[in-house]
Amino acid sequence: MNKHYSDLGFARVDTDRLKRRGYPEAVYCPGKETGQIVKIAKTLLKEGQDLLLTKLEKKVFLRLKKAIPALRYNHPAKLGYYLQSKKTPPARKVVVVSGGTADIPFAEEACVTLEAMGQEPLRLYDVGVAGIHRLMSARAVLRDAGAIIVVAGMEGALASLVSGLVSCPVIAVPTSCGYGSNFGGLSALLTMLNSCSPGVAVVNIDNGFGAGYLAALINAPAKERRT
Amino acid sequence: MNKHYSDLGFARVDTDRLKRRGYPEAVYCPGKETGQIVKIAKTLLKEGQDLLLTKLEKKVFLRLKKAIPALRYNHPAKLGYYLQSKKTPPARKVVVVSGGTADIPFAEEACVTLEAMGQEPLRLYDVGVAGIHRLMSARAVLRDAGAIIVVAGMEGALASLVSGLVSCPVIAVPTSCGYGSNFGGLSALLTMLNSCSPGVAVVNIDNGFGAGYLAALINAPAKERRT
Amino acid sequence: MNKHYSDLGFARVDTDRLKRRGYPEAVYCPGKETGQIVKIAKTLLKEGQDLLLTKLEKKVFLRLKKAIPALRYNHPAKLGYYLQSKKTPPARKVVVVSGGTADIPFAEEACVTLEAMGQEPLRLYDVGVAGIHRLMSARAVLRDAGAIIVVAGMEGALASLVSGLVSCPVIAVPTSCGYGSNFGGLSALLTMLNSCSPGVAVVNIDNGFGAGYLAALINAPAKERRT
Amino acid sequence: MNKHYSDLGFARVDTDRLKRRGYPEAVYCPGKETGQIVKIAKTLLKEGQDLLLTKLEKKVFLRLKKAIPALRYNHPAKLGYYLQSKKTPPARKVVVVSGGTADIPFAEEACVTLEAMGQEPLRLYDVGVAGIHRLMSARAVLRDAGAIIVVAGMEGALASLVSGLVSCPVIAVPTSCGYGSNFGGLSALLTMLNSCSPGVAVVNIDNGFGAGYLAALINAPAKERRT
Amino acid sequence: MNKHYSDLGFARVDTDRLKRRGYPEAVYCPGKETGQIVKIAKTLLKEGQDLLLTKLEKKVFLRLKKAIPALRYNHPAKLGYYLQSKKTPPARKVVVVSGGTADIPFAEEACVTLEAMGQEPLRLYDVGVAGIHRLMSARAVLRDAGAIIVVAGMEGALASLVSGLVSCPVIAVPTSCGYGSNFGGLSALLTMLNSCSPGVAVVNIDNGFGAGYLAALINAPAKERRT
Amino acid sequence: MNKHYSDLGFARVDTDRLKRRGYPEAVYCPGKETGQIVKIAKTLLKEGQDLLLTKLEKKVFLRLKKAIPALRYNHPAKLGYYLQSKKTPPARKVVVVSGGTADIPFAEEACVTLEAMGQEPLRLYDVGVAGIHRLMSARAVLRDAGAIIVVAGMEGALASLVSGLVSCPVIAVPTSCGYGSNFGGLSALLTMLNSCSPGVAVVNIDNGFGAGYLAALINAPAKERRT
Amino acid sequence: MNKHYSDLGFARVDTDRLKRRGYPEAVYCPGKETGQIVKIAKTLLKEGQDLLLTKLEKKVFLRLKKAIPALRYNHPAKLGYYLQSKKTPPARKVVVVSGGTADIPFAEEACVTLEAMGQEPLRLYDVGVAGIHRLMSARAVLRDAGAIIVVAGMEGALASLVSGLVSCPVIAVPTSCGYGSNFGGLSALLTMLNSCSPGVAVVNIDNGFGAGYLAALINAPAKERRT
Amino acid sequence: MNKHYSDLGFARVDTDRLKRRGYPEAVYCPGKETGQIVKIAKTLLKEGQDLLLTKLEKKVFLRLKKAIPALRYNHPAKLGYYLQSKKTPPARKVVVVSGGTADIPFAEEACVTLEAMGQEPLRLYDVGVAGIHRLMSARAVLRDAGAIIVVAGMEGALASLVSGLVSCPVIAVPTSCGYGSNFGGLSALLTMLNSCSPGVAVVNIDNGFGAGYLAALINAPAKERRT
Repeated sequence: MNKHYSDLGFARVDTDRLKRRGYPEAVYCPGKETGQIVKIAKTLLKEGQDLLLTKLEKKVFLRLKKAIPALRYNHPAKLGYYLQSKKTPPARKVVVVSGGTADIPFAEEACVTLEAMGQEPLRLYDVGVAGIHRLMSARAVLRDAGAIIVVAGMEGALASLVSGLVSCPVIAVPTSCGYGSNFGGLSALLTMLNSCSPGVAVVNIDNGFGAGYLAALINAPAKERRT
Repeated sequence: MNKHYSDLGFARVDTDRLKRRGYPEAVYCPGKETGQIVKIAKTLLKEGQDLLLTKLEKKVFLRLKKAIPALRYNHPAKLGYYLQSKKTPPARKVVVVSGGTADIPFAEEACVTLEAMGQEPLRLYDVGVAGIHRLMSARAVLRDAGAIIVVAGMEGALASLVSGLVSCPVIAVPTSCGYGSNFGGLSALLTMLNSCSPGVAVVNIDNGFGAGYLAALINAPAKERRT
Repeated sequence: MNKHYSDLGFARVDTDRLKRRGYPEAVYCPGKETGQIVKIAKTLLKEGQDLLLTKLEKKVFLRLKKAIPALRYNHPAKLGYYLQSKKTPPARKVVVVSGGTADIPFAEEACVTLEAMGQEPLRLYDVGVAGIHRLMSARAVLRDAGAIIVVAGMEGALASLVSGLVSCPVIAVPTSCGYGSNFGGLSALLTMLNSCSPGVAVVNIDNGFGAGYLAALINAPAKERRT
Repeated sequence: MNKHYSDLGFARVDTDRLKRRGYPEAVYCPGKETGQIVKIAKTLLKEGQDLLLTKLEKKVFLRLKKAIPALRYNHPAKLGYYLQSKKTPPARKVVVVSGGTADIPFAEEACVTLEAMGQEPLRLYDVGVAGIHRLMSARAVLRDAGAIIVVAGMEGALASLVSGLVSCPVIAVPTSCGYGSNFGGLSALLTMLNSCSPGVAVVNIDNGFGAGYLAALINAPAKERRT
Repeated sequence: MNKHYSDLGFARVDTDRLKRRGYPEAVYCPGKETGQIVKIAKTLLKEGQDLLLTKLEKKVFLRLKKAIPALRYNHPAKLGYYLQSKKTPPARKVVVVSGGTADIPFAEEACVTLEAMGQEPLRLYDVGVAGIHRLMSARAVLRDAGAIIVVAGMEGALASLVSGLVSCPVIAVPTSCGYGSNFGGLSALLTMLNSCSPGVAVVNIDNGFGAGYLAALINAPAKERRT
Repeated sequence: MNKHYSDLGFARVDTDRLKRRGYPEAVYCPGKETGQIVKIAKTLLKEGQDLLLTKLEKKVFLRLKKAIPALRYNHPAKLGYYLQSKKTPPARKVVVVSGGTADIPFAEEACVTLEAMGQEPLRLYDVGVAGIHRLMSARAVLRDAGAIIVVAGMEGALASLVSGLVSCPVIAVPTSCGYGSNFGGLSALLTMLNSCSPGVAVVNIDNGFGAGYLAALINAPAKERRT
Repeated sequence: MNKHYSDLGFARVDTDRLKRRGYPEAVYCPGKETGQIVKIAKTLLKEGQDLLLTKLEKKVFLRLKKAIPALRYNHPAKLGYYLQSKKTPPARKVVVVSGGTADIPFAEEACVTLEAMGQEPLRLYDVGVAGIHRLMSARAVLRDAGAIIVVAGMEGALASLVSGLVSCPVIAVPTSCGYGSNFGGLSALLTMLNSCSPGVAVVNIDNGFGAGYLAALINAPAKERRT
Repeated sequence: MNKHYSDLGFARVDTDRLKRRGYPEAVYCPGKETGQIVKIAKTLLKEGQDLLLTKLEKKVFLRLKKAIPALRYNHPAKLGYYLQSKKTPPARKVVVVSGGTADIPFAEEACVTLEAMGQEPLRLYDVGVAGIHRLMSARAVLRDAGAIIVVAGMEGALASLVSGLVSCPVIAVPTSCGYGSNFGGLSALLTMLNSCSPGVAVVNIDNGFGAGYLAALINAPAKERRT
C-alpha cells in the first residue's frame, strides 16, 4: 500500500515499520479497547508481521485469544506475542541482570521482547549489591555478553557496578520497586543516569520492553540490519 | 602490577581498565589540581594507554601541555587527548545529530570521544524539529549508520523522530541549552526518556563523552570486543 | 438581574458571562452533588444559555438526564451538553491532532467543546512521531486549518513538529497518558513549553476543554467577537 | 533553492520558512558566535526576509551593527531586528499587560516581536492584582483587543483575572521575576496553567518572543495567513 | 496532675494545653483506632475541655457516638466536636471565602473550627476569579472583617485579590482540588506564597482546621488571650 | 484624584492604598531604575504617605538619598524608609525570634517593617533548637506577645516549638540560609507548613517584610483598623 | 557451601551474611510469592540462621505459618520472625521515640528489629513538639540511651530536639504520615537532613527496619562485632 | 553561669554543651562577621572548651589568626580548630572512604572533625564503583573499622557496596560533585537513602562535619559517653 500505513479510523497502523526499522510495530495496550487491539493485530498479521502486545492485562489476553488463537502470553511480563518469522540467534548473548525478585517482571518483559526479536537471552536474577559476591561469581558470563540489560529498583547502583566489569554496552532499566524516597523509580533513574562508569545508557522507568528492543538492535547480526 | 591499579595517594589509577574493558580510563578533570592530572596522565601513558581528559578547561590544558607536549585539545568539546594505539574504523559510521548550534559543544565532545576510540563519526548539525525538511533530506545518511547519537536541548523531540526513521540504536544526549522551564536540561531528559519510539536510550544531561563512549562500544567491530 | 449572577447559596452562577465573554459558563462537575448541578444547569438554561458540563461521570449524567431530558452526553469526552443557540461555523476548521489512541478522550473533549461553540472540528488521530510519514501525508489538511490542537502524552514532541509545518496558531494539550518518568503528564508539559518552534502555547495537563475553548475563540468569525 | 535551506556547515538556515509559515525564522542568539550570526543574518536578508535576533546581548549587537548597518536594537527586550517587508496592521490591537515593572523587559520583547510581524501593540503596564482598581479602569481597552498577552511573575494571578473580563484569547507569559518559592518562574507558570478561567494558554517562562509571535498569528488579518 | 499530661500508653494527652494555649488540644484522627480516640476524648472531657476531632470519617464517628452520645458531627468538614465552654463571639467576624464548590469542605472545616473557638464566621462561597464581579459586590462584607480566610484550589489567585481589597489579616488555604499540573495543591500553595499583596500568610494544603484555629487567635477579644 | 492611582507611564502608583488598607504601598526595588524609584517615592510623599523601600541595595540608597534627603536606611534589612505619620504602639509587643545569626537580616527586615507600621518589636535572636534551654528561659517574654514572628532556615523546627508554648498567632519566615538538601529554603518552608502545632502560618522564603506587615495588622490596636 | 549463597533459581540466598555481617539477611516480602518466601526461609533456617520477614502482609503470614509453624508475627510492624540464636542484651538501651500515634507502626518495626538483633528497646511514644513538656519529662531516660531512634512524620522537628538533649547517636526515621505539603514524607525527610544539631543521621521514609538494624549495630556489645 | 549560655547580643553561646553532649558547640561560620566569630570563639576558649569552626573561608581564618594565634586551619576541609583537651583514641578506627578526587574536601572535613573529637581516622580515597577491584583489595581494612564514613557524589552507589561487605555502621555523605541530572547532590542523596543494604544512614549533602561528628559518637570508648 503506498500510504505505508492502514487507517482504521481510531488508529493508523504503521505497516511499513518492518521494512523501515527491521522489526514490526509493538502495540502498547493500555487505553485501547479489546476490539481495537484485535483490528490492529489482524492488520499486522495479514502483512505477515510478528506481533508484540505490551502491558497487556491477562483478562484482555483471554478475550484476544478467542479472536487470534495462535496468540501466546507471558504472564509476569504482561506480553502477548505471535512470531511468524524465523531468525537465527547471534553467537553472543544478551544477559539480563536483575537486582531483586520484585524487579523480575520487568526483566522478563525484556527477555520476551528479546526472544521476539530473534535473541536467546541469558537470565541472571537476584544479584543485588548488598551481597556483591553473588555478582562476582558470574563475571565470566557477563564478559561473554554481546550486550547487558540491568534491571534494578531500590538504588540502581547495580548498573554502574556491572558496567565496570565488562566491555560491552549496558542498558539500564530503573524500576518503580521500593518505597519511601524511591519516588516511583526516580531514585533509581537518577542513580543510573549519574553512573560514573561509562558505557551505560538508560531507558524509562519499568520499560523492560524498550531495553529488550534496544539490546536486540545492538546485538543483531550485521546482516539483520536494515539499510 | 598485580593490584591492577597504581596508588598515587590522592588517586588509584585503574591501569587494568584497558585490558578489562577494551578502552582506557578517561580522566574527569573538574576538582582535580593540574599536578594531580599530570601524575595520573603519566601513569596511564607509561602503561602505553591512550589518554582522554574530559571537561578540561583550556587554561589547565595549556599548563598540562608543558608537562606532556604531545597532548592535543579540542576546544568546544573541552577534551584533551593523546592517542597511542591505532584502530581500524568500522565500515558503518556513527552519525552525530544535533538540534541547534548551542548543542554543538556536546556533539563535538561525543565526536572526539568516538575518534579516540577508533571511530570516524559523521556530523549532522542544526537539524531541529522546527524545520523537519532539513532532517528528512538526510535520511539516507541516517539509515546507513551503525549507531546514531542525538544531541538536543530545548525539547528533545529530535531523538524520537530520528529513531522512527532508522533501524540502528539511538543514544540521546539531553543538553542544558535553553531557558525557562527547561530546568537545566530536565525537560529534554524527560522527553527523551518518554520517547514513544523504541530503540532509544539516554545518557546524563550534557554527557557527550558518555554517549560517544557507548556508541563506540555498540559500533565496535566484533574483533575489538574484549572477553 | 443587576448583580450579574444568581446566588444559589452554594454557588454564584455567572449569568452575565454570555454577554461578557461571548460564551456561557461551563460547569466543572467534580466535587459537586447531582442536585447542585441540576440547580446550576436550570439557572443557566432559564437564561437561554448553552450548557456544557465538563468531567461529568456517566452515572451522574444518567441522574441528570431525568431532571433535564434534553441533555446529551459524549462518553469518552465525559461531557454533558445542551445547545440552544445556533452558530454558523467558520470557513476554516480547527484540526484536532492526537498522538496515540490513549490520548483520544482528551481530543474528544476538545472536539465536543468546539462543537458547542459553533465550530466543526476535523479529527486527525494516531499520528505519533514514531512513524512520521503518517503525519506528513496529512500536511494539506493541517495547512488549511484556522487553528490546530495537538493532544499528546508520552513525550509531546508532536506539538513542535506540527507547528513547524503550518502558519496558524497551535494549542498543545499534554496528557497524563504514559508511565514511568512521564510523572502524570509533567514530561509532555515541559516538552511542549520548551518547543523550539514558535507559534505554540500550552494548556493544563488533560485539559481538552480549555484547548477547545481557546481554539474556538481564536477561530471565531470576526462578527462573533464581543466588545 | 530546492533543498529549502542553506547549509552553512554549523547551521542549516530555514529559508523556506517565510513561504511555509508566513513569517521568517527568528535567530536565537545565545551560544552562537558573532561571525555565525552575521552569516545566518546575511543569508536571510539576501532572501528578502525580515530579521529578528532574540536574546541578543548589546555588545554583540554593536559588533553586528558593523557588518549589517541597517540593524536596529531594542534594549530592554534584547531584540535586534531589520524589517524589509511592509504589513498593514489589523484594526483590532494586541494588548500587552504586565504585572510589575520588573516584568517589563519580557513585555517589551513581546511588543517588538509583534511590531516585527506587522502589529501595533498597546502597552498596559504595572496593573498588578494588589490594586485591582488599576486594571478595572482599563477594562474598555481590554475588551476591544484582538488578543491579549499577560506578562507576570510573582504569582501570575493576573492572567486569570484578565481572561475573566474579556472574550478574546489570552496568552500568558510567566516570568522569573520574584524570589523565595517563586523557583525561577515555576510558581507563576503553574498558576497560569491552572487558571480557572478558560481562554488562557501559556508559553515558556520569560518567553516574550513566543507570546508575541503567537499573538500575531492569532490577530493576523485573514489574508495574511499562509496556505 | 503535675505532669501536665495523661499517659495512656499509646498517647500522652496534653491536658495542660487549655491553660497554656487558651484552647484545648484537637485530636487528629487518621491512624488512630476507635478505642484509642474514645480514651483520649474521655480524658479531655473529664478535664472539662472542649473536644475537636479532625479528619474524622463518618463511620468512625458513628462508633464514637455510642461511647460519647453528646458528640456532634459536621459531615463535609469531617469534624467531630463537643463544646462544653461558653464564649462570647467578638463584634467583628471572620469571613471565610471559597473559590469553587469543590473547596467548600475545607472552608467548612475552617468554619466549624472557628465556631468551636467561640467565633461566628461569615461564609462567602463560590466567588472565583473568573467572574470578578461576584467578589466585588461583597466588598463591604470583606472590609468589616476582623480576619479573612481564603480557601482556593485551581490557581489560588483569590488570596492576593482579596488581600488587595482589605486591611485585615488574610489566611490562605490552598486546596488539592483541581487536576493536571495542580500537583495535589502545590500550584495553589506556591501562588499563595508568592502573593504580591502583603498581609497574606499560608497554611498547609487542605488545612481548613489550621486556618480556622489561627483566625480565631487573631480575632480573639483581648481578654480571651492567655498570659 | 478620582482614579485612585497616579500613572507614571512605567508604573501606576496606588495612592489609594493608605485609605483602602490602612498602610501605604511598599515599593519592591529590584528591577526598578533609580530614577523610577525617585518618581514613585515623590508621588507617595506628596500624598503625605509613609515610605518603605524593600530589598533596596545600599548603593541605590545612596543615590536616592541625594533626591530625598530625609530617607533613612537599615543595612542588614536592606530597607529604605521615611515615616511621616505618628502612631501609638500597642501595649502588647510583637516578638521576633530567629534561629541563627545568618537569619538575622530577615529578622531585621521584619523588625523595621514593624517599626514603620507603628509597632515596637522585641528581638529574641539565636535561640535555635539544638540548645533548647536558650528558648525555654525566654518563655515569659513569648507568652506576653501579641504576635510572634519566627525566622529560621536549616530545618525550621523552631516555629512549631514556639507555637506550642504560646496562645498568640505565630508567623513563620523560612529562610534560604543553609546548604545541601535545604534547596534554597524549601526544606524550612515545608517544615513550617507541616507544623503539627496549630496557630502557625507561613510567608514566602526570606520574606521578612511580609511577616512584619502581617504581624502589624494582627497586633494593630482596634482603632487603627480601616473599614 | 563455597559459593556463599544458595541459588534457588528466582533468588540467590546470601547464606554467608551471618558470618560476614554478624546478622542474617532480612527478607523484603513485597513482590515475592508465598512459595518463594517459604523456600528462602527454609534455606536460611536450615543454615541455623534467624529469620526476619519485613513488610509482610498478615494474610501472607497466615499462609507461611502453615509451612513454618514456629514463625511469629508483629501486626502493626508487619514483621514475621523466628529467632534461633540467643544474645545477651547490652546494658545501655536503644530508646525509640515517636511523635504521634500514626507513627507507631514504624516505631514498632524498629523495636521488633532491635529485639531480633538481641536488643531490649525502650518505647517512648507520642511526645511531639507541640507539647514539649512531655519530652522534657523523659530527659533522664534519653540521656541513659546507647542510641536513640526518632520516628516522626508531619514536620520531623523532633529529631533535632532530641539530639540537642543527648550525647549518643540519633537515627531519624521520617514517616509518610501527614497530608498536604507533606508530600509522602518528603517534608519530614528534608527537615531531618537539615537538622541544625549534629549527631543525627537519617534512613529512608517509613524505614523502621533500617533504623532498628543500624541502631543495633551501633549499640552492639564490642564482642558481638564481626571481624 | 547558671543560664547555661552566654548572651553576646547577636548570639547565645551554648557553653553548657560540653557537659550536656560530651563535645563542645561547633561554630557554623557562613553569615557571621569576623568580629562575631572572635567573640564566640573567645567565650568558648575561656570555658576551656575545644574550638571547631566549620565552612570557614581562608581569608576569614587569616583575620581570626591575629586575634587567636593558636588557631589552626585545614584548607580543603575549610575547618578552623584549636584543641585544648586530650583524648585517647579508641582501638578501632573510623575509616573514611571517598569515591573520587572531587569528593576529598568533604572527606577531609569528616577526618578533621574526627581528629578534633579524639579519633584517628583512616583515609581510603578514590575507590569508586567503576573499578571495583580497588575497593575489594581494601576489604580487610574495612572489616576492622569501628564505623565507616562513605563520601560520594555522582551516583552514591558506593555506600551500599561498602555496607554489604562489613558489620559496622556506615554513615553516608552525598556530595554535590557531578553535573547534569545530579541536581546538586540530590541524585546521590536519594541513592544512599534507598540503599538496599541495611546498616546505612545518611547525613545532609556535603555535610562532612556532621558525618564525622556522628561517627565519633558511634566509635567513642564507652567511658567517654556522657550521662
